[in-house]
Amino acid sequence: MGRWEPNAQERLTRAALELFAERGYDSTTVAEIADRAGLTKRTFFRHFADKREVLFRGEEVLSRLISDGIAGAPASATPLHAVGAGLEAAATAFGPERREWSRQRQAVIADNRELRERELLKSTALTAAMADALRERGVPDLTADLAAEIGYLAFRTSYARWIEPADEQDFAELTRRTLKELREALGAVG
Amino acid sequence: MGRWEPNAQERLTRAALELFAERGYDSTTVAEIADRAGLTKRTFFRHFADKREVLFRGEEVLSRLISDGIAGAPASATPLHAVGAGLEAAATAFGPERREWSRQRQAVIADNRELRERELLKSTALTAAMADALRERGVPDLTADLAAEIGYLAFRTSYARWIEPADEQDFAELTRRTLKELREALGAVG
Repeated sequence: MGRWEPNAQERLTRAALELFAERGYDSTTVAEIADRAGLTKRTFFRHFADKREVLFRGEEVLSRLISDGIAGAPASATPLHAVGAGLEAAATAFGPERREWSRQRQAVIADNRELRERELLKSTALTAAMADALRERGVPDLTADLAAEIGYLAFRTSYARWIEPADEQDFAELTRRTLKELREALGAVG
Repeated sequence: MGRWEPNAQERLTRAALELFAERGYDSTTVAEIADRAGLTKRTFFRHFADKREVLFRGEEVLSRLISDGIAGAPASATPLHAVGAGLEAAATAFGPERREWSRQRQAVIADNRELRERELLKSTALTAAMADALRERGVPDLTADLAAEIGYLAFRTSYARWIEPADEQDFAELTRRTLKELREALGAVG
């Protein structure tokens, strides 16, 4: 089974989500995921380090997209505008074809304490990556931390809105709207 | 050994920190901690649910102090002023007699991935508690989330400054100074 399997990663991911929804994350084995996808365990481990990675593998890509977006913002951009550029760059990871998968993924995570904790840790790493990218632009320490916290709040809020059943708005548009609301809230925190 | 042991909790805490520093957190057992404190394992478990709790038990007290401080701020206080009141209330948990213990505790946590993760999760819970306390005051959702993130950043920064070797400033004073700097940074994020 050393041969190349078309769409193996996609098939494994879909099979995993199906099984997590049917019998729970903890009760699903890697062998069952591979079996449901019509692939072998060996193929699974060529694509994912472990079962959890099926759900979290995209986080590194996301972090890189946002950091690169911040780095690529015009030199004249304020810290929050640079963060906005980072979030818009992240939108390429949240196309309409990902929405249903993201909804299912979120339901699996919400249902499992260990996965919720893993997600919180990833979110801290994402915030730290944003702060680092801002510091690289010469933003002072505390301002970089602050803009990164606001940026992560914007991301978290946009994402929650994006996966709402009734919402069919574009992710990039949602980040712009959320950042606008957060700018207004900045005027209201006192 | 059912009798009351004077200062048992304090003695166990000091013994634990000594042992964690000497031989590492993972290599220290509850039996060793009790032994070093001249107490029994049974006494240990009357005070702490497990070894980790020696380091994190104070977090719930802290969360309650901050929430109560936010709730008790004048009705006219802005969200950030209410957060400031919460942080000042927390200062009672960070008296000068706690500084050296806090420094040692932080060194143990910094050295252990599992403990660092535990601390991050506790920090998320603290931020959520601040946001809840603000919502209780009628602060709108997103503004409450924003003020809580700023509040946690103020807390984290103040605490890091408080345990710096060179710093001997009062915790309450540090939270006021840090919040002032964060207000200035708010004007700079754009």
